[in-house]
Amino acid sequence: MQKILNKRKIINDPIYGFITIPDELIYDLINHPYFQRLRRIKQLGMTNLVYPGALHTRFHHAIGAMWLMVEAIKVLQSKGVEISKEEEQGAIIAILLHDIGHGPFSHALEHTIVHGISHEDISEMLMNKLNKEFDGKLSLAIKIFNDKYPKKFLHQLVSSQLDMDRLDYLKRDSFYTGVSEGVISSDRIIKMLNVLNNQLIIEEKGIYSIEKFIIARRLMYWQVYLHKTVLSAENMLVKILQRAKELASEKKELFCSPALSKFLYNRYGKKDFDKNPEVLELFAKLDDYDIFGAIKVWADNEDEILSYLCRCLIDRNLYKIEIQNEEFKESYVKAKKKEIATKYKIKKEDLDYFVFSSSVANEIYNVDKIGITILFKNGKTKDISKSSDQLNVEVLNKTVKKWFICYPR
Amino acid sequence: MQKILNKRKIINDPIYGFITIPDELIYDLINHPYFQRLRRIKQLGMTNLVYPGALHTRFHHAIGAMWLMVEAIKVLQSKGVEISKEEEQGAIIAILLHDIGHGPFSHALEHTIVHGISHEDISEMLMNKLNKEFDGKLSLAIKIFNDKYPKKFLHQLVSSQLDMDRLDYLKRDSFYTGVSEGVISSDRIIKMLNVLNNQLIIEEKGIYSIEKFIIARRLMYWQVYLHKTVLSAENMLVKILQRAKELASEKKELFCSPALSKFLYNRYGKKDFDKNPEVLELFAKLDDYDIFGAIKVWADNEDEILSYLCRCLIDRNLYKIEIQNEEFKESYVKAKKKEIATKYKIKKEDLDYFVFSSSVANEIYNVDKIGITILFKNGKTKDISKSSDQLNVEVLNKTVKKWFICYPR
Amino acid sequence: MQKILNKRKIINDPIYGFITIPDELIYDLINHPYFQRLRRIKQLGMTNLVYPGALHTRFHHAIGAMWLMVEAIKVLQSKGVEISKEEEQGAIIAILLHDIGHGPFSHALEHTIVHGISHEDISEMLMNKLNKEFDGKLSLAIKIFNDKYPKKFLHQLVSSQLDMDRLDYLKRDSFYTGVSEGVISSDRIIKMLNVLNNQLIIEEKGIYSIEKFIIARRLMYWQVYLHKTVLSAENMLVKILQRAKELASEKKELFCSPALSKFLYNRYGKKDFDKNPEVLELFAKLDDYDIFGAIKVWADNEDEILSYLCRCLIDRNLYKIEIQNEEFKESYVKAKKKEIATKYKIKKEDLDYFVFSSSVANEIYNVDKIGITILFKNGKTKDISKSSDQLNVEVLNKTVKKWFICYPR
Amino acid sequence: MQKILNKRKIINDPIYGFITIPDELIYDLINHPYFQRLRRIKQLGMTNLVYPGALHTRFHHAIGAMWLMVEAIKVLQSKGVEISKEEEQGAIIAILLHDIGHGPFSHALEHTIVHGISHEDISEMLMNKLNKEFDGKLSLAIKIFNDKYPKKFLHQLVSSQLDMDRLDYLKRDSFYTGVSEGVISSDRIIKMLNVLNNQLIIEEKGIYSIEKFIIARRLMYWQVYLHKTVLSAENMLVKILQRAKELASEKKELFCSPALSKFLYNRYGKKDFDKNPEVLELFAKLDDYDIFGAIKVWADNEDEILSYLCRCLIDRNLYKIEIQNEEFKESYVKAKKKEIATKYKIKKEDLDYFVFSSSVANEIYNVDKIGITILFKNGKTKDISKSSDQLNVEVLNKTVKKWFICYPR
Repeated sequence: MQKILNKRKIINDPIYGFITIPDELIYDLINHPYFQRLRRIKQLGMTNLVYPGALHTRFHHAIGAMWLMVEAIKVLQSKGVEISKEEEQGAIIAILLHDIGHGPFSHALEHTIVHGISHEDISEMLMNKLNKEFDGKLSLAIKIFNDKYPKKFLHQLVSSQLDMDRLDYLKRDSFYTGVSEGVISSDRIIKMLNVLNNQLIIEEKGIYSIEKFIIARRLMYWQVYLHKTVLSAENMLVKILQRAKELASEKKELFCSPALSKFLYNRYGKKDFDKNPEVLELFAKLDDYDIFGAIKVWADNEDEILSYLCRCLIDRNLYKIEIQNEEFKESYVKAKKKEIATKYKIKKEDLDYFVFSSSVANEIYNVDKIGITILFKNGKTKDISKSSDQLNVEVLNKTVKKWFICYPR
Repeated sequence: MQKILNKRKIINDPIYGFITIPDELIYDLINHPYFQRLRRIKQLGMTNLVYPGALHTRFHHAIGAMWLMVEAIKVLQSKGVEISKEEEQGAIIAILLHDIGHGPFSHALEHTIVHGISHEDISEMLMNKLNKEFDGKLSLAIKIFNDKYPKKFLHQLVSSQLDMDRLDYLKRDSFYTGVSEGVISSDRIIKMLNVLNNQLIIEEKGIYSIEKFIIARRLMYWQVYLHKTVLSAENMLVKILQRAKELASEKKELFCSPALSKFLYNRYGKKDFDKNPEVLELFAKLDDYDIFGAIKVWADNEDEILSYLCRCLIDRNLYKIEIQNEEFKESYVKAKKKEIATKYKIKKEDLDYFVFSSSVANEIYNVDKIGITILFKNGKTKDISKSSDQLNVEVLNKTVKKWFICYPR
Repeated sequence: MQKILNKRKIINDPIYGFITIPDELIYDLINHPYFQRLRRIKQLGMTNLVYPGALHTRFHHAIGAMWLMVEAIKVLQSKGVEISKEEEQGAIIAILLHDIGHGPFSHALEHTIVHGISHEDISEMLMNKLNKEFDGKLSLAIKIFNDKYPKKFLHQLVSSQLDMDRLDYLKRDSFYTGVSEGVISSDRIIKMLNVLNNQLIIEEKGIYSIEKFIIARRLMYWQVYLHKTVLSAENMLVKILQRAKELASEKKELFCSPALSKFLYNRYGKKDFDKNPEVLELFAKLDDYDIFGAIKVWADNEDEILSYLCRCLIDRNLYKIEIQNEEFKESYVKAKKKEIATKYKIKKEDLDYFVFSSSVANEIYNVDKIGITILFKNGKTKDISKSSDQLNVEVLNKTVKKWFICYPR
Repeated sequence: MQKILNKRKIINDPIYGFITIPDELIYDLINHPYFQRLRRIKQLGMTNLVYPGALHTRFHHAIGAMWLMVEAIKVLQSKGVEISKEEEQGAIIAILLHDIGHGPFSHALEHTIVHGISHEDISEMLMNKLNKEFDGKLSLAIKIFNDKYPKKFLHQLVSSQLDMDRLDYLKRDSFYTGVSEGVISSDRIIKMLNVLNNQLIIEEKGIYSIEKFIIARRLMYWQVYLHKTVLSAENMLVKILQRAKELASEKKELFCSPALSKFLYNRYGKKDFDKNPEVLELFAKLDDYDIFGAIKVWADNEDEILSYLCRCLIDRNLYKIEIQNEEFKESYVKAKKKEIATKYKIKKEDLDYFVFSSSVANEIYNVDKIGITILFKNGKTKDISKSSDQLNVEVLNKTVKKWFICYPR
């Protein structure tokens, strides 16, 4: 008869069906407030303004990536790769917690709320804190996360150009946006995984799946992640926070949660996190609600710039965005600024909130990093960029950069 | 060559693929701040605590229901049912706006934030306001919404036991929760629609699809809408608001947005909405962010009850819930209260925040309301409850009621 | 590194993704000509004339059911039910081979090609033959198949009102017909399986899934399995074989494969199978190709009745079919026969090939057989027909019978 | 109320849901025996030996492509492209009938049953015959099919590098094989269609979808269409027919249908089809049943080569196949022949039935043919091979050729 399970062990996922939580330690980590916070951080920031289904969270993504890790380890073990119970748990925890340091709206605000510290840094700090709370049980996971564990392929499952993170987020983002062309066959790719000389490799017959994965990733970049309307919205979000911080620096009072307040009225960087443990604790309280809850109120702020930007974002009157493959000419930007300044009667010193130009870049595949290695039936291995007669290695290797300019319609 | 479209006309939906916005008036309604607000109101309140994918919004649901209406009207027209361009637009607007009066967390807080006024009442008020703004162009839609238009079947498409609202929400809620068994074939049901004597009917060969629809609805009720953990979470949410209002009535200061503040420190009912147009405007500013943004801060409130409840909800330490088919015996409730009071050292007057018992009910199909009528090939019609040899009419007709009791673990 | 697998072990299935063949014995059984024959027997006979996608075979179904068995056993084992390696293999083989005795066009011709012997009888015979070939390794499987193994629940997984056979065919038939409403959540049902007192049971929270399964089954019956056009086509197929046999009895020469020839020019029953091992071998050569290959040629046969029937079937000019809940009145049938006889100038003795009336019946759930048992949290068990307040036990228990009459248009 | 429809107008398709037959002429064409024959010709020949779900037929594919044409024309019309009712019907009929000349097992036997005449030639002949039967109503369709109609884009919808044929078969073949990575978003591609200067073009934002389409096509080639096991099976099928024809030329009697008999005992080429209208009629009787029905019987033929080959195919004991990027060295082939000749005691003159070497080639995209043109927002157009920074034009343009050798295991 059924064993009594004290802890709820199954999570429904529209993508994979039922996800079973592998063990009690992992169950407890999922229930920790640090991890529960991820329920309130949307995976794709403001993307829902274009794709209204894209409301899924870092929480769901982390659970999904965990599930793929479970599957991947099963496949490797079935092929004779030795992975102990402890290593398995370590790799699963590493992927589960890989995003735990993300702040509100994921990437969108990454360098606006804090300065000179990445979400990966914060993830590591939070893992170390959890490791203390859980009496060192996360040590192996942290080693894997930091690539300090001898079995390199475990780290590669967590973080590489073909890790469980990417497999889950491509699939999940496709699913929730409805951009069905981004769908990848994580199933098939995982079935093709193997390990050779301590490196994760893909068996030869997985080559077309990998091509497809790379093309799908590229498609998602331009169709979703760097969608021009999303770019406009997220840049406006950044401008809002910048304005708020400017007002804060002038000691203006702004409605905000106590936690957000600290980050508005102070400029916290890596040193602060290192010196002052409270900063990390405060950060661990922030989520989308702090930001958007404030923005809603700021829409009625007496500062006209702040209220204008907030109102635009809330009502989805986004700035027009032009995008192109070369940098905008200085003269064009100047002319545009002048036009807008006149039209809306904007002071020169405020103009950067209304007209701004920047760039985005993406690299689909980087041949200089540890790549995706194909194992051929003759026992030889080659990087995918050299295995595929289709993928254009020079193009793949080139960072694609686009410039954009935003301004009110 | 392609006509120039000034307005973005296509919305991606993971469920139906591409949704085309039928015309410019509808486009403008969708872009109105009243409607954009629905982007920030989750369709299923706290359900995401159980089904983490269930983050979809009233916005997406309303767009989806609009799409089904477009399809349904096409089918009826192809069968020779006369529906003019204006009637078509009216029906589409009526379904688009049917939920516009929903407040934060949809049903969960319906009777906590305001009193004696339903979301349907508020929907109507907002529609009337929009009608003024749009120079009377919504008049026909409002007639259809209020069932005052002679072609009764148009209202039935908006609101009946087989309306486009239900078809969309069952499908959408199944999709986002991952409870695949709730999936209904809205496609097939819509293909079977027809009109007889001004009433919406289903052609005979749709009978099994209707059975399936009713059973799926029932399944969604018990598996999702009234899931015990969801019940616990949503009742805790209500308790939080009640506690906040109590504190507000004692003039305690509480962190909250200005809009929420009004509803905390005042008790607004139907009369206030009627008398004071500002109340409606304030209500139209509320969404999930006001509530959850406050709750996050209240978790550190000095009032121990409020902070305890908020902390529980945020960290997903939900009250234990027992559920059964009969009312709980008074003695049982008393004993439970005593036990909890002792265990947690709770004062008698505060005990209702910790141990509470209530009931939920659902009726799957109500034979007394306008029902689902089947048209047989011999030209006769019968209600589904009499057409199906499988559906148990007595059971269908009976409101199923369950009692529950919640308390800290 | 990957172990060398000598035998191809993965099968692509559009429904479950990748199916792994559990072991080498099973691999060898799948490759046996008896089993490969199932590749040439359509699961749903002539149903593809209505649902053109329904071309899937007994082969694919058997593989799918095998896969569900693998999953079900994993679930039971994880709940502490003891199932040894041998028992696991036995149950898997039993389900894999459960349909191996099916003849051409599955059920459609079951009692036309042979007489007084069911496909289950033939399945058992073929299993016994295989058991000899495989040195007795199928003995346990055969015990399970015949319900002679002490662990009764293993047989119930193979054959009961909630067996892996039903779970797979409902899902598969839905998928290939495109009748999406028949889709069941085999996943969820399997997760809810457990064993109590040697009986397969379903845990309480699976109750709505079971309701849905029963309703879906019912829907598939009327929408697919007993679809009136399918009934017409399959009855015409039977008439064709009857006519061919009649001509054969008159020593008329008919184009047909040697194997089919034996069954046309002889009347084989259970005794013949028992006495003469060759009969079984001949039967194991028959598949859809023998029948339809002959019918195509018979369309030009000099016998007008045979050629007419065959031509109709090939060109999909099917007889009109009327269907109703009561038997057709003798007078009606007589009148119809007269009408057709006059219209087409048919001799009285041939009229049964042109106008025929019969009935079909289905029972969705039989409370007298071993039923679907629900295990409640309080430890009690009840049959689903008594656990569900929705399923109408009297209706469920009643065989639904419909009468039909077919004749040329 | 519903108009009375005399003719069944809806077809269930697991891929697109419900397909409505546009008009009565098209309905009658679908019901014509020539078209119904396609129900008995598998789209992917012997591919089901590898992907057991791949049993879908030319019939289903043609219906699906018809449906995409209906959708594509709707999109173009909504963009202001003028397409009259007659042109619409013509384009639909042209795509519906584009494959009507396919013989048994589609491409596999294309040059074995007839000689020097392609399936396109036969399609045209059958269309002309139908045109006579239908009083010239197909004239416009035939013009479109033959690219003799002034609106060139209509032909391009029927036959080009981005036609409705390819869109349907990629999607359908993915679906039924379960190779989910081949799935393309026909929906999105169709939404991006437009017409400029009488040419079909794709709007700029469809560029990533086209990349994906090309990569998916490539993936399907290597994973499905040219899967090595499928190559082996289909080449064995060809060998079987060759052997049968050889025996026929020696006047040996072979079991086969009368229609197949004509093609075995005669060598029909284009001239015969032109001269003798009966040949076309005979061809229009052939389908998979003639071939496989014969093969099953030939498995017991006294000719050892024929029976060996047939037995292998039926029981799926396929020849081993080696495949590589260069031609096999003559010495290797010789050695292999010798080895097999010795092992199986085969006479020199028979050896070609046992060891054979050949090549397959595919071109994914041909820059010399009318290509896929992208329309940029600045009004300029470019071929996809020059628009995409990802697709490697030199590779795309190069026919990929692989050599293989087959022999018994």
